[in-house]
Amino acid sequence: VVAIGSEGSAPGLARALKADIETRLPKTTGRLAGTIASLRARLSGIMPEFADRQKLWAGIFTPGQGLGERLKYSDTELEQAFEQALDGQASEKIGKVSLVGAGPGSLDLLTIGAQRRLHSADVIVYDRLVSQEVLDMGRREAKYIYVGKAPGAHTTRQEEINRIIVEEAKAGHTVVRLKGGDPLVFGRADEEIEALEAAGIAHEIVPGITSAAAAAASIGASLTSRGHNKSVALLTGHDTKGFAEQDWAGLARPNARAAVYMGLGASRFIQGRLMLHGASAEFPVTIVENASRENEKIIGTTLGNLVQDIEKYEVLGPAILLLGYSPKEASNIEFQPLRAGNE
Amino acid sequence: VVAIGSEGSAPGLARALKADIETRLPKTTGRLAGTIASLRARLSGIMPEFADRQKLWAGIFTPGQGLGERLKYSDTELEQAFEQALDGQASEKIGKVSLVGAGPGSLDLLTIGAQRRLHSADVIVYDRLVSQEVLDMGRREAKYIYVGKAPGAHTTRQEEINRIIVEEAKAGHTVVRLKGGDPLVFGRADEEIEALEAAGIAHEIVPGITSAAAAAASIGASLTSRGHNKSVALLTGHDTKGFAEQDWAGLARPNARAAVYMGLGASRFIQGRLMLHGASAEFPVTIVENASRENEKIIGTTLGNLVQDIEKYEVLGPAILLLGYSPKEASNIEFQPLRAGNE
Repeated sequence: VVAIGSEGSAPGLARALKADIETRLPKTTGRLAGTIASLRARLSGIMPEFADRQKLWAGIFTPGQGLGERLKYSDTELEQAFEQALDGQASEKIGKVSLVGAGPGSLDLLTIGAQRRLHSADVIVYDRLVSQEVLDMGRREAKYIYVGKAPGAHTTRQEEINRIIVEEAKAGHTVVRLKGGDPLVFGRADEEIEALEAAGIAHEIVPGITSAAAAAASIGASLTSRGHNKSVALLTGHDTKGFAEQDWAGLARPNARAAVYMGLGASRFIQGRLMLHGASAEFPVTIVENASRENEKIIGTTLGNLVQDIEKYEVLGPAILLLGYSPKEASNIEFQPLRAGNE
Repeated sequence: VVAIGSEGSAPGLARALKADIETRLPKTTGRLAGTIASLRARLSGIMPEFADRQKLWAGIFTPGQGLGERLKYSDTELEQAFEQALDGQASEKIGKVSLVGAGPGSLDLLTIGAQRRLHSADVIVYDRLVSQEVLDMGRREAKYIYVGKAPGAHTTRQEEINRIIVEEAKAGHTVVRLKGGDPLVFGRADEEIEALEAAGIAHEIVPGITSAAAAAASIGASLTSRGHNKSVALLTGHDTKGFAEQDWAGLARPNARAAVYMGLGASRFIQGRLMLHGASAEFPVTIVENASRENEKIIGTTLGNLVQDIEKYEVLGPAILLLGYSPKEASNIEFQPLRAGNE
């Protein structure tokens, strides 16, 4: 039974909240309450202290942390959890690290899994590209550690980030390592995974929506189209040695399509390489800055005008270059798209 | 004020639910209730019928449909919504279509945006690859239309799907077109977008986690690694003409990495083409079947053993071939990974 009261001030709001919560509760909640009632009867016989009994149940049903899944327990699963808790062998708390994709910025493009990890994190280690909206999903009591670039300072070194996540986990904390977009796509997740493996720390990866997908959604384009492209490449503009060399001949073909990450600084290099390999100056390119965010900017241009349009439209923020894609309406103009997250 | 009762059967569960719900309610809810109280006083003077007043408030605070966002309204925003509702000019209901990525299957990998669209959809048009867990996020009252392949029957033709979404939207419904993975990656989203544009129907795209990202997360591998690969290709095994030709020379290079969608049937073709272009029989390949789901299966193999291992391990379901990736522990064995969604 769910009751929401507003002390008379907003009964309609209370009613809507009640209906909303009821819809979200699994249909199994009622049945579960019945099973709990019989287990409680058993427990009061073997555990006389009220406080102990309360603590046992709190260990099974903790707000946030997987509560939704536990509400779906079958009777057998509930009884197992009960027996485990009863064994009283509360295992020593061992930390773990979740490498979590924060998506491109809009809360709409955060996964439910990311939201759940943030709800239960003790420590949140985050980058410059993670939006405030997403950070706000963490608990107020969590420890927030910023490891992005501070104005005028160098980026926190990867070794330092590795050290932080390992140490926080060793201290028994549930750590969320939160990265913009998808940690698996130019997110250096592998370097952190290696550090965690070396230290013997449990970890998992929760992929996120990568910026290229958000950028394509914003211009109403599919990354792949039957009859047009049988592959799409995700590229970086930079690597450890500077501008990244790519398979320029393949990318210069008329039907080729690719999304370039960190491509702004490398735009003149990319333009030169592609044209050298025979790409037309008319080859369509769309620049999507701050994909999915309030300040998103979309510029439809061509390979020939790429460099000057980046300057002309003052594209400074994180941006994806979509090679071989045009925004829907026209090119060379700023374009207001249908955007995921708009209603 | 939130109260949860279990009629005495499970007070601990009720307490955990109450705490969980309170954490999730925006801190602004109390303030909002205060503002509503003053607007109600004003409303009762100008709208004498209780039922009319109730309907007006229900129009502002609807369960599911953006309720979470409305709870964060500032006083000004609330007053604006109130004035709009008061104007009583309920605009004629016009349908719209959201093309929504359902992700690879696990609820953890569904986006909050997808969840929101499902909560408010009148009609849900879905494919074979959408999991039951995700479908269950829709309202019970929604109309569910299956357009996947029925056993022994042909897949619903694309033209028929286009017709369904256009007609449902024209009938004034809020339509969610739900596709497994990301509709923008080998999901034929562009064909549906074109049909919607031709019919003049408002639409948007909500990208989803694509299967390749879920597959990589499951084997603990980053799709890109600094110093190893500067690009990753997403490929299809099939196109309109049969097995899809690709840039085999590029893919056969030792450091090349790619994820192949719909590659099971084309595995002998892919093996042959890559080896013809000089790829080693020892080139690592990982097969991930049903990525992120309970029945996920991971097989680390090599290009040389690819075809026989697909048969040996009875890989039948939707699968991603990760070319150039090894699962963490060993190859050629079934491997139980850390999986997003595990706790």
